[in-house]
Amino acid sequence: MRRIAFLTAVMSVCGVTALGAQADETGPADQTALTKTFDGAIQPNELRDWLKQLASQPNHVGSPHDKANAEWILAQFKAWGWDAHIEQFEVLYPTPVHESLELVGAKPFKATLQEPPIKGDSSATATQPALPAYLAYQGDGDVKGGLVYVNYGMKEDYDTLERLGVSVKGKIVIVRYGSGWRGLKPKLAYEHGAIGCIIYSDPHDDGYALDAVYPKGPQRPPRGFQRGSVQDMTLYPGDPLTPDTGATKDAKRLKIADAPTILKIPAIPISYADAKVFLSALDGQVAPESWRGSLPITYRVGSGKVLVHLAVKSDWSLKPIYDVIAVMKGAAYPDQWIIRGNHHDGWVFGGSDPLSGQVALLAEAKAIGALVRQGWRPKRTIVYGSWDGEEPGLLGSTEWAETHADELKHKGVLYINSDNNARGFLEVGGSQDLEHFVDAVAAKLTDPETGVSVDLRRRAKLRIDAVLSGAKDKDHQKAVAKMAANPDRDTPIEALGSGSDYAMFLQHLGLPALDVRYGDEGDSGGVYHSRYDTFEHHSRFVDPGFVYDTLLARTIGHMVLAAADADVPVERAADFAEEMAQDVSEIKKIATDKREAAEVQAGLLRDRAFALAADPTKAHGTPDALLAVPQFDFAPLDAAVTRLKTSAQAYDDALAAHGATLSGERLARLQALMLNIDQTLMSDTGLPGRPWYRNLVYAPGTLTGYGAKTLPGVREAIEQQRWADANTYIGLTAGVLNAFSDRLDQATAVLDAP
Amino acid sequence: MRRIAFLTAVMSVCGVTALGAQADETGPADQTALTKTFDGAIQPNELRDWLKQLASQPNHVGSPHDKANAEWILAQFKAWGWDAHIEQFEVLYPTPVHESLELVGAKPFKATLQEPPIKGDSSATATQPALPAYLAYQGDGDVKGGLVYVNYGMKEDYDTLERLGVSVKGKIVIVRYGSGWRGLKPKLAYEHGAIGCIIYSDPHDDGYALDAVYPKGPQRPPRGFQRGSVQDMTLYPGDPLTPDTGATKDAKRLKIADAPTILKIPAIPISYADAKVFLSALDGQVAPESWRGSLPITYRVGSGKVLVHLAVKSDWSLKPIYDVIAVMKGAAYPDQWIIRGNHHDGWVFGGSDPLSGQVALLAEAKAIGALVRQGWRPKRTIVYGSWDGEEPGLLGSTEWAETHADELKHKGVLYINSDNNARGFLEVGGSQDLEHFVDAVAAKLTDPETGVSVDLRRRAKLRIDAVLSGAKDKDHQKAVAKMAANPDRDTPIEALGSGSDYAMFLQHLGLPALDVRYGDEGDSGGVYHSRYDTFEHHSRFVDPGFVYDTLLARTIGHMVLAAADADVPVERAADFAEEMAQDVSEIKKIATDKREAAEVQAGLLRDRAFALAADPTKAHGTPDALLAVPQFDFAPLDAAVTRLKTSAQAYDDALAAHGATLSGERLARLQALMLNIDQTLMSDTGLPGRPWYRNLVYAPGTLTGYGAKTLPGVREAIEQQRWADANTYIGLTAGVLNAFSDRLDQATAVLDAP
Repeated sequence: MRRIAFLTAVMSVCGVTALGAQADETGPADQTALTKTFDGAIQPNELRDWLKQLASQPNHVGSPHDKANAEWILAQFKAWGWDAHIEQFEVLYPTPVHESLELVGAKPFKATLQEPPIKGDSSATATQPALPAYLAYQGDGDVKGGLVYVNYGMKEDYDTLERLGVSVKGKIVIVRYGSGWRGLKPKLAYEHGAIGCIIYSDPHDDGYALDAVYPKGPQRPPRGFQRGSVQDMTLYPGDPLTPDTGATKDAKRLKIADAPTILKIPAIPISYADAKVFLSALDGQVAPESWRGSLPITYRVGSGKVLVHLAVKSDWSLKPIYDVIAVMKGAAYPDQWIIRGNHHDGWVFGGSDPLSGQVALLAEAKAIGALVRQGWRPKRTIVYGSWDGEEPGLLGSTEWAETHADELKHKGVLYINSDNNARGFLEVGGSQDLEHFVDAVAAKLTDPETGVSVDLRRRAKLRIDAVLSGAKDKDHQKAVAKMAANPDRDTPIEALGSGSDYAMFLQHLGLPALDVRYGDEGDSGGVYHSRYDTFEHHSRFVDPGFVYDTLLARTIGHMVLAAADADVPVERAADFAEEMAQDVSEIKKIATDKREAAEVQAGLLRDRAFALAADPTKAHGTPDALLAVPQFDFAPLDAAVTRLKTSAQAYDDALAAHGATLSGERLARLQALMLNIDQTLMSDTGLPGRPWYRNLVYAPGTLTGYGAKTLPGVREAIEQQRWADANTYIGLTAGVLNAFSDRLDQATAVLDAP
Repeated sequence: MRRIAFLTAVMSVCGVTALGAQADETGPADQTALTKTFDGAIQPNELRDWLKQLASQPNHVGSPHDKANAEWILAQFKAWGWDAHIEQFEVLYPTPVHESLELVGAKPFKATLQEPPIKGDSSATATQPALPAYLAYQGDGDVKGGLVYVNYGMKEDYDTLERLGVSVKGKIVIVRYGSGWRGLKPKLAYEHGAIGCIIYSDPHDDGYALDAVYPKGPQRPPRGFQRGSVQDMTLYPGDPLTPDTGATKDAKRLKIADAPTILKIPAIPISYADAKVFLSALDGQVAPESWRGSLPITYRVGSGKVLVHLAVKSDWSLKPIYDVIAVMKGAAYPDQWIIRGNHHDGWVFGGSDPLSGQVALLAEAKAIGALVRQGWRPKRTIVYGSWDGEEPGLLGSTEWAETHADELKHKGVLYINSDNNARGFLEVGGSQDLEHFVDAVAAKLTDPETGVSVDLRRRAKLRIDAVLSGAKDKDHQKAVAKMAANPDRDTPIEALGSGSDYAMFLQHLGLPALDVRYGDEGDSGGVYHSRYDTFEHHSRFVDPGFVYDTLLARTIGHMVLAAADADVPVERAADFAEEMAQDVSEIKKIATDKREAAEVQAGLLRDRAFALAADPTKAHGTPDALLAVPQFDFAPLDAAVTRLKTSAQAYDDALAAHGATLSGERLARLQALMLNIDQTLMSDTGLPGRPWYRNLVYAPGTLTGYGAKTLPGVREAIEQQRWADANTYIGLTAGVLNAFSDRLDQATAVLDAP
């Protein structure tokens, strides 16, 4: 029913463009005039006023202001000339009924679980209540157990625990935010036998170690905490009860007990003011150096003798979410959709996250509306989505896209996402056949701080980061920097994993997707998912003057206009081929490194070196033996990459030679081959253990959560010692790359045809 | 005069051994009986009592207890049958007259500069005064200036400051202990234009971050600080006024103003309780991540607006130091000396540093005395040195060895050093042709904690460290681990730089040297050079039961006995050759890496990437351009290493085949060629800018201070962009390696002669 309503909306307008004819993605001629007009319609003060209004009250799922915002956004779209409506879904969205966390024993202590208001901030002026410390889709329970500190709670931390001779079985773990996605922390704790999980924000990671704390500076104050979702989105995002189906009122639903993405143990977030009490109570051996945060204490792992009591009880009812969908129908290709989205729900006020991106989206929509009023029409249909329920698990975008999946697969040409935004550098992630497209836009935008192009500045940043940062993936960074240093090559963009509303489009449907933001200088990390992510914080510390929020609107606006009006596909293949070659070489290196590590470790175990090098006065253990790493037959992947490079260069050359003059039947054939070429990278088998993830080139890592893994079927199989999977997915992955090459070859033939 | 007295002493006794005839360094037959007897004479309770006595009062240079200890030690040696005397020198040794450090301005603060007594500790029971916060050979002055935080104050920190756009010119710097040698911190500060230097102990490096603080745990309490010397020992150690000459009463002395090793600016050490006030007052930009310690503050670099006032005034008179020299004359080779030393002066009580090593030395001396009483005599002469004045600058050992330099070059066969000791793993540094010698001893000693040999345990540790530690020199660590994993190879030992009394012997005279300790489990780092390095601290946290101090005495004792009694030289050449090959390969990699870094940086500077990647709201700068790295002609070094490997293997093989049966004239010829072979590695030219350092294979780094640089003439020239020096020292270094090979070839000829 919702789907029919949507289709009606899409088909409602038709016309021919006045300003934008014949423009391609590099934007010559009248496209420049168009973007100039567009830019003039975007005013920082409007973004400021909208953000202030939208962030005036808590706007999480189920709050009155969430619904009010959706309705207000709808009204704006309509006023700006868009065909808009609200699409509502009914999702499982637990809310806290009772919570408590106590240190038991001689010096009892009860965690506060509330963030105090700060004078001069929305946290003090808002009249509606904020959610307390809470993690959506945690597992409810009333547990008591010994406390163990597990650092970031990632896989390597459990490896370390094993060496330290400490088990979390039957224990409650305390883990700090950072390093990997929040939801993995209680999940891994559960898988290692823990019965509860406390997640705290260490000042090392987003508190005073980084800068003064709010309100004096941008960073997390002692009693601020990070809410968030712990839904297992490595399996699938969206409503846990309706995988693969839109969560419409009458949808078939799983039982809560059967929903695999709901955590099995209780979990709760706390502040560092609270955490300090729990951590400094810990006994047992001193935590390893890399585990130590910035609290003025001796970080200890904990012997399990210090007891804590954790109880969480939630209301597990369905709640409504409100997606605002707005359509501007294309004049030439109405069934080719450029989709643009940003969520509107926050954890509390959502000043930076998501409203800084949301007001950019609104500004674009208003400017597009103004262009249309002036007589311009996009060639393609433009669909704007203001998603609800992103925070608990990408609910709004996933349910909408599941509801319209078939249509999206046929009509979706590109999805462009944003979320939070800040002052600084253009940061783009996405499908790497869009590097040229992004470059063309970024090269024409001027960075307000330096006066050079946004592209030049991000290239400088990528190169400097490779030299100065101490990142783990130094080789990858160096490869990226080398690409960025080559002025004849497009600036590389990073692969996408998950964590925002692009996931469904990219990972499940296979649409090409981009996630766009500015950042790195302004900083909202210190108030991330806290009550202090407010209008005031954003205005003072994240993007003073709304300069970069405005620039985000212009940046994505140019992308939308270019993608909507380009007759020929915006993809370029050589960049993508080079990225794939780099990925395959990284994967081979992983295999080589792991083989060496397994051989070294086998020697260490044989010679009892772990035991002999341990301090016998402290607990210690021996790591599980690594499996010997076989020699993989990478030949199919190597061949696929070699072929891809050739096919890609031929296609790009042919497009450069003949693309501009293409029309009629040949243009239609080229579009048919190329507009959905990214879907050739999908597999019906999906990834091992998580068939919802169908993209064999991009996925969130099962052990990173948000962070991307490229060629994940092969890469993660090798990383995780699943040799059979590695061999299977070498074949499957080579297969999709070859399918991509097939398409390219067909498209080249169309272009080169006499 | 002193020298004559010494010679008389050496020549006084002569006899033939009862127990030790024909033993070689692998210790078969009667050597085993000898070491068993020796071991039985070493009793933990004696070490405990001696340490308690020696550490009962402050014993720094010039203190009454320093002299009393020397006299007491002398009496012991004499009682144990040694020919012993005190050799006195008159050295420049400044002591504080007035010191103050204040934060000036709205919230003034005066640093305490005193360590309070701790109940139950010698700091509370001793009756004589401790030195206050003081750095020997700092520059005196009364300065006022803006404060700037410079992290560890090493070269790379100044590179970072340059990028941050911060200058220390005319400023007072505050720097934390760690990363490199103390003395480099004010030296580099001065060279960058600073007018004063404050050095503090961050809890990250030896305070609560590592463990509970004293007296609850071993680590540095809030008001503890680290005294020390800031004499520029990268130029030369010893009395600043008498380089190359013994500081006897009538020695010719430099004027203080002309002494190059005295610092030019005032400097002072403070505690972290004091440092917190200064650091939290700082304004300006936030310090980079790797600069942040464990204080609960935002570490900032400082804009220079926060003012401090530092004043230090010292008494620059000469003070006496008392070396105790004890001789046990050799029966067979009286003019071949095995020298063994450990200093007896501390900064305050010196519980761990140096008395844990000193009591081991005493225990060895007593046991050797007992062996002699039973009728045994060493074949070689054994010389024990209990040095004074090590802490201010290796004064006692340097002045003694300078006084007796000619004799030592002719008679010195081996110098074995120790200093502080702790529970844990055998850690040996030294001349790498002694790896086999060390291995032979370590393989026969049982680790008290694990029951395996000390050698097996240290091999395990080296291998595990390479896997688990996050050290910068990962490649070097992996190479070391690979050697340690090979049971057919001797365990590698690390090269020595400086920082204890071996420096003069190894770096200036060219004697083969070893520095021996146990450690890594017990920990005296938290009280290092503080008032809390006491008998109580050592007994509770560093070596409970004096188990490892006893083991140190046995370990070094076995070395002394083996070296004294081995007819054939204890050096083995193949290990050394392999180490040299590894060093040359490391140096080539440095050149390659630096070449790439210079090329990358040239591109970054050309494209203004540093400026574009900087946040324009913060100060920032551009780094100095790295020099383009030429292609060096490493051929002479490569050829020297190739030859060395061949000559070394041939020598080791010949020694194995014929060494045991050698006697008479041929044995004498072999000894003449091999006992001083390490001196072939010396050059009269010395190292660039510091001719006192004559060893072309081992030296302390000019930018590390204590840490060794192997093949330093070449390595540091490349690291420091002195290309002409690099080319010159490739030749010179190849020359000394070839001279070493020449000797080996001659020795092989002697061994293989029919």
